[in-house]
Amino acid sequence: MPRFPQFAHRTQLLQGSVFEKYRSRMQAQGERLVRLHIGDTYLQPVYPLPIDPAFRKVHPVFNRYCNTYGITRLRKALAQKLQEDNQLPVTENHILATNGATNALSIAVHGLVNPGEGVLTLTPSWPFFMGMVKMAGGEVTELPFYDRLQAGEIASITEYLEQALQPNTVALYLNTPNNPSGVVLTEHQLAEIAAFARRHHLWVISDEAYDGLTFDDHRHISIAAMDKMFDQTISVFTFSKIFMFAGLRLGYLAATPPVVTELNKVLVHQLYSPSTLAEYMMLEPLTTRHQWMPEVQRHYQKLRDLMVDALQFTVPVPAGTYFLFFSLKPFLGKRTYDAVFEQLLQEGVSVAPGSDFGQHYRDFIRICFTGEPPERLRIAAERINRVLLQS
Amino acid sequence: MPRFPQFAHRTQLLQGSVFEKYRSRMQAQGERLVRLHIGDTYLQPVYPLPIDPAFRKVHPVFNRYCNTYGITRLRKALAQKLQEDNQLPVTENHILATNGATNALSIAVHGLVNPGEGVLTLTPSWPFFMGMVKMAGGEVTELPFYDRLQAGEIASITEYLEQALQPNTVALYLNTPNNPSGVVLTEHQLAEIAAFARRHHLWVISDEAYDGLTFDDHRHISIAAMDKMFDQTISVFTFSKIFMFAGLRLGYLAATPPVVTELNKVLVHQLYSPSTLAEYMMLEPLTTRHQWMPEVQRHYQKLRDLMVDALQFTVPVPAGTYFLFFSLKPFLGKRTYDAVFEQLLQEGVSVAPGSDFGQHYRDFIRICFTGEPPERLRIAAERINRVLLQS
Repeated sequence: MPRFPQFAHRTQLLQGSVFEKYRSRMQAQGERLVRLHIGDTYLQPVYPLPIDPAFRKVHPVFNRYCNTYGITRLRKALAQKLQEDNQLPVTENHILATNGATNALSIAVHGLVNPGEGVLTLTPSWPFFMGMVKMAGGEVTELPFYDRLQAGEIASITEYLEQALQPNTVALYLNTPNNPSGVVLTEHQLAEIAAFARRHHLWVISDEAYDGLTFDDHRHISIAAMDKMFDQTISVFTFSKIFMFAGLRLGYLAATPPVVTELNKVLVHQLYSPSTLAEYMMLEPLTTRHQWMPEVQRHYQKLRDLMVDALQFTVPVPAGTYFLFFSLKPFLGKRTYDAVFEQLLQEGVSVAPGSDFGQHYRDFIRICFTGEPPERLRIAAERINRVLLQS
Repeated sequence: MPRFPQFAHRTQLLQGSVFEKYRSRMQAQGERLVRLHIGDTYLQPVYPLPIDPAFRKVHPVFNRYCNTYGITRLRKALAQKLQEDNQLPVTENHILATNGATNALSIAVHGLVNPGEGVLTLTPSWPFFMGMVKMAGGEVTELPFYDRLQAGEIASITEYLEQALQPNTVALYLNTPNNPSGVVLTEHQLAEIAAFARRHHLWVISDEAYDGLTFDDHRHISIAAMDKMFDQTISVFTFSKIFMFAGLRLGYLAATPPVVTELNKVLVHQLYSPSTLAEYMMLEPLTTRHQWMPEVQRHYQKLRDLMVDALQFTVPVPAGTYFLFFSLKPFLGKRTYDAVFEQLLQEGVSVAPGSDFGQHYRDFIRICFTGEPPERLRIAAERINRVLLQS
């Protein structure tokens, strides 16, 4: 029952904007139209706001309800970014602003997956994605992938994916650069995955939250840029990582206009729209990204190198993301995983347990090397060495 | 199958924070703990931000991921507000910050309603709510209520609700002050509804988005403040209406701690958290509300009076909200509803079609009297008079 280009049944139950059919006539009236159809206020907030007056002068209406697809200026700037940096064939009509990548993934799952349908999930995987599939009534098939690819254990990606396909699979969840393994898929690897998705008419939910966060000569490639893949891919991005603004909760997705229309219906029923203020705030950092981003990338690479060097044992070196991800098995000795995990906490280091990232990773831990400054990372590495190498 | 205090099955499939069980030990370590468990960055954004430097000094970390329940200072301030203004027996542990009231209602529906279960929806009703129930696989039973109550057509609320109860009803959707009718339920009316909900163990989803927006001597009462109702009620509020900040997308709900915990699981799977910046920004207007809110209320009441007076026909006078809501039937003559709706648009006035608010309201229109300044409202009223009274 694979079914690109069909949507989940639930989207047929939802209405989009009832004003869509009047939009052109309303626009034609311009300033003459007195707008009484939306529950809105013409008042500006009467209490003080901690916003730069110059910014408010340029963007005076960020306090009103906005277009639920996102403000046009942001969608245009994002289309240009995706053309330039990701080689995606997009205009503003291919963009939907969302409340972070989390929200983009949630609406993609709810818009594409019916109860009882399956999502082939390459693991290790960001944990909330699997929860979203379950929340929509779908089934997750976990396929250990990124770390095995890195270890050279997958001889043929094609055969490996084919044997994992289930009769109910309708979508594939892909995440490169991968959280937690730090693996960045190559063009050749993505081409094999793309051919598999095309052959079986699978929707591809491409989580690219760590876009812009690759090291050395690794380069992030969007699968939607590959031959004939754009139509069946939902490409998901965020301002929470390389833009350093997790607290704003702004992300976006790129897809064909029919997909954007269906997913917008899900979005308005989850939260109406993301923050208008956030959308205006990200315009400048987006358009000036070539000025500030390289320095941030170099800085994160230095943090990665610091952490890898400070650990007195060998770990897989991440090609991108914020993370180191490795098995504790070689370090356990007579201790249990839980005992070591607790010992780390006792020593003063909190790490993420591998079980969060899939059933095949219960022996692993994930370490974030960007959440603390260098001097604190060094302290953490010493503590980790002490706990892991004591056995 | 009514089932307060049970949750929808889907919440059992979802994980909350895996770190919850380590929280106390992590807190015990204080500053000593090096936090490598979250995918976060210690860097402040390196590009300019349009935020007041004084505000950034006080709230330096609004760019990081935050507690998904909401920042503690906001939850405490909200608890105090709900105690003082709504007589709710709450502490910060009863509060969940959300991405607007829309998001609060969406997670309430997904956390409480299983596929095939029913929600008794008093209408006319805000349209997206019915879509949310459908999205969760639930069934909506529409019961025309607020306008009939206002017209004196409901002799006994108790009997009227009892005859509408379905075998699959598990929740009741209540919205006072009511969008679109402007009806504000009285204590006596709410007591009858509360008794009905208690008798049948129904969850009550109480949409109080227009809290603070009542006129004359009408007073908004939260049903959760009534005898034994707090445990089975989810009370939903927003910063989009009387706080005039729809573009920030911040709302909140109040419920028992077990409900808050279950709904937080749904929330993190829809969008992770609302904006930290928005949460910090609303602290001051929340605590200073007694200074600025009365003037705003008076101003809206003047706008209501202006609109009611300027229309050359009688409409039900709203006791609260932003809206007038009335049937076009008396004005149609030989014209169809659609023809009159189009004529209004042609004359330069956009209104909301009644069919959005329930199947019993296809002859109605909703007019918002707060989205445009007074001089524009007068122009709109003239145009409406011209179109409706020409027949």
